Amino acid sequence: MTTQTEETTTAYSKLIELSRERSLLSSTAEIMGWDNETMMPKGGLDYRSKQMAQLARLTHQMATDERLGGLIDEAEAECQPESEDAANVRELRRDYEISTKLPAALVEEFALASSIGQHEWAVARERDDFEHFRPHLEQLINLSRRKADCLGIPEGGEHWDALADTYEPGMNAADVEAVFTPLRKRLSSLILDLANSSNSPSNAFNEAECPISNQETFVRRVAETLGFDFSRGRLDRSVHPFCGGSHCNDVRMTTRFHDNEVNDALGSTMHETGHGLYEQGLPYDWVGTPLGEAVSLGIHESQSRMWENQVGRSREFWQWCAPIARETLGGQIAKLSDDELYQGANIVRPGFIRVEADEATYNLHIMIRFELERAMISGDLEAADIPSEWNRLYKDYLDLEVPDNRRGCLQDVHWSMGAIGYFPTYTLGNLYCAQFFQSACAELPGMTEAFADGQFKQLLDWLRTNIHAHGRRFQAGELCERVTGRTLTAQPLMEYLEGKLRPLYGA
Amino acid sequence: MTTQTEETTTAYSKLIELSRERSLLSSTAEIMGWDNETMMPKGGLDYRSKQMAQLARLTHQMATDERLGGLIDEAEAECQPESEDAANVRELRRDYEISTKLPAALVEEFALASSIGQHEWAVARERDDFEHFRPHLEQLINLSRRKADCLGIPEGGEHWDALADTYEPGMNAADVEAVFTPLRKRLSSLILDLANSSNSPSNAFNEAECPISNQETFVRRVAETLGFDFSRGRLDRSVHPFCGGSHCNDVRMTTRFHDNEVNDALGSTMHETGHGLYEQGLPYDWVGTPLGEAVSLGIHESQSRMWENQVGRSREFWQWCAPIARETLGGQIAKLSDDELYQGANIVRPGFIRVEADEATYNLHIMIRFELERAMISGDLEAADIPSEWNRLYKDYLDLEVPDNRRGCLQDVHWSMGAIGYFPTYTLGNLYCAQFFQSACAELPGMTEAFADGQFKQLLDWLRTNIHAHGRRFQAGELCERVTGRTLTAQPLMEYLEGKLRPLYGA
Repeated sequence: MTTQTEETTTAYSKLIELSRERSLLSSTAEIMGWDNETMMPKGGLDYRSKQMAQLARLTHQMATDERLGGLIDEAEAECQPESEDAANVRELRRDYEISTKLPAALVEEFALASSIGQHEWAVARERDDFEHFRPHLEQLINLSRRKADCLGIPEGGEHWDALADTYEPGMNAADVEAVFTPLRKRLSSLILDLANSSNSPSNAFNEAECPISNQETFVRRVAETLGFDFSRGRLDRSVHPFCGGSHCNDVRMTTRFHDNEVNDALGSTMHETGHGLYEQGLPYDWVGTPLGEAVSLGIHESQSRMWENQVGRSREFWQWCAPIARETLGGQIAKLSDDELYQGANIVRPGFIRVEADEATYNLHIMIRFELERAMISGDLEAADIPSEWNRLYKDYLDLEVPDNRRGCLQDVHWSMGAIGYFPTYTLGNLYCAQFFQSACAELPGMTEAFADGQFKQLLDWLRTNIHAHGRRFQAGELCERVTGRTLTAQPLMEYLEGKLRPLYGA
Repeated sequence: MTTQTEETTTAYSKLIELSRERSLLSSTAEIMGWDNETMMPKGGLDYRSKQMAQLARLTHQMATDERLGGLIDEAEAECQPESEDAANVRELRRDYEISTKLPAALVEEFALASSIGQHEWAVARERDDFEHFRPHLEQLINLSRRKADCLGIPEGGEHWDALADTYEPGMNAADVEAVFTPLRKRLSSLILDLANSSNSPSNAFNEAECPISNQETFVRRVAETLGFDFSRGRLDRSVHPFCGGSHCNDVRMTTRFHDNEVNDALGSTMHETGHGLYEQGLPYDWVGTPLGEAVSLGIHESQSRMWENQVGRSREFWQWCAPIARETLGGQIAKLSDDELYQGANIVRPGFIRVEADEATYNLHIMIRFELERAMISGDLEAADIPSEWNRLYKDYLDLEVPDNRRGCLQDVHWSMGAIGYFPTYTLGNLYCAQFFQSACAELPGMTEAFADGQFKQLLDWLRTNIHAHGRRFQAGELCERVTGRTLTAQPLMEYLEGKLRPLYGA
């Protein structure tokens, strides 16, 4: 392993030094971004956007440093195949190629369109006026097609693939479709059965009001018990929960609170704690290099969803958590039974809004977006037709009549930023999550039972060893095969959902 | 006025663009430094020091950009003499010369010695072991002499002058001595009279315990009433209170709380609020240029001390504040009279520790440090002799027997950082403060009376117009003459202290 203080005599060590230098600056940008969302007074907004743009510019200069190309070639020749160092070189090549394939003029044009796009999207959403947003979306689609052309369309692939690969290395539309199609059928059937069941789980937990200070005490205790190390991270509040920070020893996550919906605060916290545990599990010795970074958005999401859902909505978790919830949250919640709390955490109810969706319906929201953006970017769907197509698919997949575009195609920020190819990483995360969790359960008898005693270390240690410690050593697909012994399928997710929800609903 | 978006056709506009670019990055370092003291989990320490070093390195590169020398010469020829632009060029030349006079090797050696020095000083202070610190101090003195040689000793001046000029432009030891000598005599006489007086003001306020949450509500209300704009700044907690932040619209100040000593929390908050009001009063249009920056440490301190002392320890302030203190702080403090609160804020009692000193004795602490560091750097005093000289001067000036070096010459961090020539800016601040305040009182009849109604806008507006709005347009001495009509003297400070303290003590 090469450290920053070692003599830099090889191309590899020089390469790592440049990587660490770039990463040091981008980690500063991470803290500034966190500050932006959590601490900055509103007067700071204008200047902060300039600070962020400067950091992005300086980081981009470092990422495209002309010495890198040669060093990567030389370092590749130096490293033992299959070694950790070789993996670092492979990933640095990938990053370098993505950074250098895009002309600076396109990057700037894209950044500007994205910035304006987000602003005008917010206006359009506020006014429920899709036509206001349409020209900006059209420009972003055009720019995204140009971006895909620069990145290079894989052989036999399509524009969407080139974009998606920047979020989830190796992901392509055909593979996604092959997993999504059977998943959709089984999910639709499950949701229909639940809707028609005679059981109706109690929703009292989600309706109960609770002082925010009590909620905060409660979620902090949960995050700490799951294993989040507060000496190497923080939990604050922001409008949209996220997990950021500088590196594994300084992880910054946020959550949100409402007067009711304690379960939203808990779910958000456990979700971000999952991200945070992954970040804290990355090896500090490799900080600033790919081996010190997370694999992909999909694998990151697999960690957040596991703690939020497989752990946080399990019967065993609630055996441990219910008395703590009653004691800490007090008031109306003190009167709820273990069953009512567990049921409240597991309500399935089709709705318009993705970010409020339950475990079962969530993936249908993603599939709709995937179909639409794939058609948009291939040229098969005009921006003007998005609202009607959106509403048609919501009727088809979720049996919902979308009442307006605010609760329809204007609800998400992603397209307004030009982030096309991003949405499926959420569902991939759910799939990886279920497949990983099934393996962990099989390898660690008694693991889920221990949740009932507030013991989560077995699972965390398993994730640390099998996933976190590797950084980007293995790409997502390879990691999945190494950890679970097979390629990604929808089977584990469906088994998990059906195994839990059918008994709960008597369906 | 030149803005960042204007076409850059002149050398001046190009120069301003480079200044803004450098300042943008150093403002990022400011936020990171604030985060370090207030928010960062302790696990982040190691990596944060690397982030800060990188920002310092990149900022230094920008400050010594080889294009600057030529641009400064050209811009000087372009600007109208006495104009705002000419002032910007003058100050940018000053900054550039300081940055380029020091060889990079010396800067690095100094930074390393300073970093080690601080660490070993903390160890030495903890163990009350001056000898442990002595070799590090000796090295810092040697490096400081070399630094002074590089900066250039002014004609007829001494090494100390070159160093002090970097903190307070134009300050030199002879001038400081000329002000300090008469001040010391009058202060000593005042303090002796107070000590021998029959009156003994009540200290109950400083002994009362009070929940920290109540203290926080109280000091926030005071800061807001004085005029601190919380939409353009924050107040947090840190071990050592400070005021930092990014620019006038994002000012970050901190304070501290103990279970008792509410007056310390209040004084710290009002002190930092004074710094914060100055920062918030700097013109945003000039951000990133000298005209958007504070004049000097001395002028900055004049603002903090004015709100802490001239305002915060005045009879009129307590007429407004006493009922609020009793109501917000509650408990034992609810039982104190207006007089007891006012007296508690004005106790004079010689002590060993500078940062705990009252208004009257504070400046004697500074004078002792000034004498010692001047002799150290000139070679007249060996490091080994500092403890005995320190103790001799404390006996002489404050009639105190220093019990150990922890409460003696190891109490302050400054010398361990190599900050020699810094201490006198504190007393200069007190002097500027008193002289400014006297002028404000003369120009604004009824101003102090309005404090009794919680009205501080007259004073703030006067400071905004006369001091804050100018940025670095005028150097400290010139600013003082423009605002008060005369050069700096000790007279206003002594009149202020004697006018308040003699009646209070019946002396």
